[in-house]
Amino acid sequence: MRETMAYVAVDSGSPLTLQTIHRRDLRPHDVAIDVTFCGVCHSDLHEIRRPGNKPLVAGHEFVGTVTAIGPGVTRFQVGDAVAVGNIVDSCGTCSMCLAGQENYCEQFPTLTYGGTDRIDGTTTQGAYASEYVADEKFVYPLPDQLDPAGVAPLMCAGITVWEPLVRWDAGPGKTVGIVGLGGLGHLAVKFAHALGAHVVLFTTSEQKAADAKALGADEVVLTQDPAAMSTQANRLDLVIDTASAPHDLTPYIRALALDGTLCALGALGSMQFDPLALLVGRKSLASAGSGGTVGTQAMLDFCNEHGITGDVEVLCARDVNDALDRLERNDVRFRFALDMRQM
Amino acid sequence: MRETMAYVAVDSGSPLTLQTIHRRDLRPHDVAIDVTFCGVCHSDLHEIRRPGNKPLVAGHEFVGTVTAIGPGVTRFQVGDAVAVGNIVDSCGTCSMCLAGQENYCEQFPTLTYGGTDRIDGTTTQGAYASEYVADEKFVYPLPDQLDPAGVAPLMCAGITVWEPLVRWDAGPGKTVGIVGLGGLGHLAVKFAHALGAHVVLFTTSEQKAADAKALGADEVVLTQDPAAMSTQANRLDLVIDTASAPHDLTPYIRALALDGTLCALGALGSMQFDPLALLVGRKSLASAGSGGTVGTQAMLDFCNEHGITGDVEVLCARDVNDALDRLERNDVRFRFALDMRQM
Repeated sequence: MRETMAYVAVDSGSPLTLQTIHRRDLRPHDVAIDVTFCGVCHSDLHEIRRPGNKPLVAGHEFVGTVTAIGPGVTRFQVGDAVAVGNIVDSCGTCSMCLAGQENYCEQFPTLTYGGTDRIDGTTTQGAYASEYVADEKFVYPLPDQLDPAGVAPLMCAGITVWEPLVRWDAGPGKTVGIVGLGGLGHLAVKFAHALGAHVVLFTTSEQKAADAKALGADEVVLTQDPAAMSTQANRLDLVIDTASAPHDLTPYIRALALDGTLCALGALGSMQFDPLALLVGRKSLASAGSGGTVGTQAMLDFCNEHGITGDVEVLCARDVNDALDRLERNDVRFRFALDMRQM
Repeated sequence: MRETMAYVAVDSGSPLTLQTIHRRDLRPHDVAIDVTFCGVCHSDLHEIRRPGNKPLVAGHEFVGTVTAIGPGVTRFQVGDAVAVGNIVDSCGTCSMCLAGQENYCEQFPTLTYGGTDRIDGTTTQGAYASEYVADEKFVYPLPDQLDPAGVAPLMCAGITVWEPLVRWDAGPGKTVGIVGLGGLGHLAVKFAHALGAHVVLFTTSEQKAADAKALGADEVVLTQDPAAMSTQANRLDLVIDTASAPHDLTPYIRALALDGTLCALGALGSMQFDPLALLVGRKSLASAGSGGTVGTQAMLDFCNEHGITGDVEVLCARDVNDALDRLERNDVRFRFALDMRQM
């Protein structure tokens, strides 16, 4: 076994503590990665604060440098800069895996932390750590033109909004609504703009209007303003809803044009909407989560070409508990990246 | 005003009675139609039995013969055989109307009965009658190769399933599920089969298996059989759900393949489903209702080419109350058509 230092949640109420944890010895297709930057995702906060899954090491969007490779590794060499997202294995044989959508693996994908390793049955531990070990299949070359810290959030927040934008053809001639301007939303605005769509940002915060326009939004609509909302009726080809708090989806369905789609990324517990709003205009309500290897590589290539990264505030890893507290009160613009070399 | 005989619902509890009603004098673009066959739709039953909208003449899928035309009519002549569906006017200027989807008119379409005429403000009365008067824009030539009685159900049940099948690309290489084998479902099976799709019929009734195969279904799945349902997991590109009783949509969402769509036509009050089932496989839940002029003409052309009509039991118009009673207890296979010449 390999030893590494990690910020461990020992229970749901205490701050993370720096401890030694173990990584598996390299399997034939494994690479060992020295973690440099790890994004702080809302899922991290949720998993750390909820009872019952401890001890836990969070962190599932990170970049680093390959320090060792297994004998069967073909895609990487020691010294390569790489990035990893929230999935590190899958069955590899189901219809979803064969389509490159391992995130929807029929046997459930192995999550980067809190998952169950398919070979030894251990619980995976995340990248709030100095080192991570992963199968090369789920490791991506770090795009050479991009700031590494800003790539970290692409690996979870980024791919989560990238795939639905591409699936529903965001691009020239399309009007795309983005709901919420947080970690996911700010990347959705950047992507939709770079893909050539006309971008409408929906937010409850007047203060975010200037940010949204700087990121690429063509219009900003305050959702609590009925007059502003009504100007959007039957207009949008696609809405990507990144708001995680429960809310009524009906106003965004009404904003869709004929045959439009609302993809709700945050409403996992329940979806509240008026079915009649779906009927009038033959509209669709969809959901999506994370991404597969094919989409992730396509997103990284696109970002490299267009100079897109997440807007991050870099904190020393030793400030991880501050990062979590600030995330909890939404004091973040737009994502934290932990510098894991600063333990 | 023109006089005609009609079967009128005078209140929600009594049988329909034959009475004289009035039609408007022909406007420039109106045609007067001698009604020959009128289908009996579940909406008719619902509107007749519910309180508060009386007196009412139901009937919104019918065929007949033009007996008079207004001076501005260009598409029809006296003697032409024609068909009419459940919409007889719309604003004509909104995005939905301009797209040929008058059924989703932003100012609400004028329904064939129970609607409000856009010019004189009167309540429209349906085609359980000897004559109907309509603007030629919403009147279609009767396909010359088809049995007129069997065309009647195409005009509501047919177009309602046709449009989503076409919208979501039912055709060769696609696997399409149809839920329910009633008025809508039996036409959905015929259409999907004729469009070239592999058709899976979902039903609660073992007795319907033979019917379904005769209509064009390649497979029949009993929905109450968990083993049979599990064979469909992640398999269907599209499901058209025609079941009108409230039911959990989750099993059909699970049956969808990656990026598949479930179009629920009957669940207008509420839609019950597990949002996580939508997420896993990036699936969509949609709804739709009725159809527009472009789709209706395309459907009629397709039916004429492929010899498709609704399977109807023709009853004399004077038996309309029997028809409604039998429809109420689901004693119909698959649609009633009233012969309006037999009053």
